Amino acid sequence: MSSQMRRIALARRPSGLPVPEDFALKEAPMPAPGAGEVFVEVTHLSLDPYMRGRMDDAGSYAASVDIDGTMVGQGVGRVIASRDEAFAEGDLVTGMTGWASHAVVPAQGLRKLDDRLPPTTALGVLGMPGFTAWTGLRDFGRPKAGETLAVAAATGPVGSLVGQLAKAAGLRTVAIAGGAEKCRLATERFGFDAAIDHRACALREAIAAEVPDGIDIYWENTGGKVLEAVMPLMNTHGRIPICGTIAWYGGADGTEDRLPKVWRSILVKRLSVNGFIIFDHWDGYPAFLEEMTPRVAAGDISFLEDVAQGLENAPAAFISMLTGGNTGKQIVQLA
Amino acid sequence: MSSQMRRIALARRPSGLPVPEDFALKEAPMPAPGAGEVFVEVTHLSLDPYMRGRMDDAGSYAASVDIDGTMVGQGVGRVIASRDEAFAEGDLVTGMTGWASHAVVPAQGLRKLDDRLPPTTALGVLGMPGFTAWTGLRDFGRPKAGETLAVAAATGPVGSLVGQLAKAAGLRTVAIAGGAEKCRLATERFGFDAAIDHRACALREAIAAEVPDGIDIYWENTGGKVLEAVMPLMNTHGRIPICGTIAWYGGADGTEDRLPKVWRSILVKRLSVNGFIIFDHWDGYPAFLEEMTPRVAAGDISFLEDVAQGLENAPAAFISMLTGGNTGKQIVQLA
Repeated sequence: MSSQMRRIALARRPSGLPVPEDFALKEAPMPAPGAGEVFVEVTHLSLDPYMRGRMDDAGSYAASVDIDGTMVGQGVGRVIASRDEAFAEGDLVTGMTGWASHAVVPAQGLRKLDDRLPPTTALGVLGMPGFTAWTGLRDFGRPKAGETLAVAAATGPVGSLVGQLAKAAGLRTVAIAGGAEKCRLATERFGFDAAIDHRACALREAIAAEVPDGIDIYWENTGGKVLEAVMPLMNTHGRIPICGTIAWYGGADGTEDRLPKVWRSILVKRLSVNGFIIFDHWDGYPAFLEEMTPRVAAGDISFLEDVAQGLENAPAAFISMLTGGNTGKQIVQLA
Repeated sequence: MSSQMRRIALARRPSGLPVPEDFALKEAPMPAPGAGEVFVEVTHLSLDPYMRGRMDDAGSYAASVDIDGTMVGQGVGRVIASRDEAFAEGDLVTGMTGWASHAVVPAQGLRKLDDRLPPTTALGVLGMPGFTAWTGLRDFGRPKAGETLAVAAATGPVGSLVGQLAKAAGLRTVAIAGGAEKCRLATERFGFDAAIDHRACALREAIAAEVPDGIDIYWENTGGKVLEAVMPLMNTHGRIPICGTIAWYGGADGTEDRLPKVWRSILVKRLSVNGFIIFDHWDGYPAFLEEMTPRVAAGDISFLEDVAQGLENAPAAFISMLTGGNTGKQIVQLA
């Protein structure tokens, strides 16, 4: 074991989409666990859109990353040394390790993983993205058999599970994704009834053709032109869980004020629009794991991972993900 | 009794704010009630912002008024002739009479009024606006003692009751209204803790000064610059019942796209934004009347009416109301 660990620090706060210079790869002496702490060698790191918010100074869901602080994030890894009786050397665990090769984590922030499933499932389909899909669809989508659901970023780890859960609940499911390959994945792998390329011209007409009965649930991952296209197709008493607005991370894209029309649609169509952040809902995580772990283990749920190699490539993979460059849950495998 | 009745017809569909030429005063032969119908002489007519939506071709909450059709609306009046056993000549009733001196109304669409209260209360504090305030605050505002509520158009028939109900529920209540006189009414007559003139420059700062703990419920009657000023002051898990967007009836007012910021605020602050239309909720009206009638009769609830004289002046009063020219519930008293 090297005597130095590696980590990705926030070098400066980005303006709009992050660029490589906003990050810095740093070395530091290996930390040592104190009482009640566990020392973990990270094998896989999760990259998620929420991390973009943490790079800002304020106003996002949670505390900012400090300049020169380690980028936040969940990882999985092996316990190297433990000073808590709940964990032993060699245990496979997950927790908030940050973007780093090694981490000291409080024992109560770690969870042991089931060895029978690939450890990366703890970052994707059985991790935060999967739990986000499961919770948000149930609590804010409130699906009913026979309804129609549309989801943006439909081959991502949240969207792909939203679609599968909605389909299983008896809804017509329509994917909106970027490019022909993702559209093919949406229908063939994730079982959506239809898929629409958001790069198509006449996006609204393309979606309309696939939702003959309108849209009852629009799962909002993106904002931007997809929202604009979907809004006129929403049915009365429709629901819009807002899970992300990734299309606007790079700044506004409109040339006119779209707020009056959207706000009036919410009124006229009696829509229920709910922003939610999964960090508010962790008390439901055990119930989610209990329900979904056997379904994933049985192969009833499809999931897809996009694995970048090496901690040093985490910034590039993250930047690419924010503009849809990934296909499936973005993970970084550490050397 | 004249052999002719008078009515206000929709002459053409308005573009933005209506103008007098969009309406036409017409005469017609007196109608006669059929079986199960009641013939009413209208004494008071209600003017409400929702009627603007009915003037459009489509896309509003409910069926459009046809060109040359009588403008829709609720009235109160006296029964002149009845062909239904539930009503007799001389009864004081309310129902959807339209903007007209006389109307034939199906008996099941009429309600007898309590003679002990002014009949106009059936159009305001105990009518649709009052029921809107009561229902929307309970179901979509979900007030909790100690929270802060802000309401736009605060001296209107909906806003003034929202404020009083919220105050009674233990909330700090902040009125936003147009002009010094309405601000004075808001605090002195309707008991708001503070009132802010939306014509003030630095609107956001003015509101911020009165909401030291932020805003938990923003009752949306207007949209426009009030919404823009309030949004940054919303607390996490805040609620925004959307009851109207009257500021945008004349068209959009923004010079840049405000949608990305608002949409992201809904996410980041986990807001619950619900459009609602009171016509969906009529099954709760008896419970509302049972609770609120004694409170109004006892003088516990303040209300204010702005009474225009003569059916021919209904269009001008309606147009004025849409830009805040009224003070209190707008009513037209017929000759």
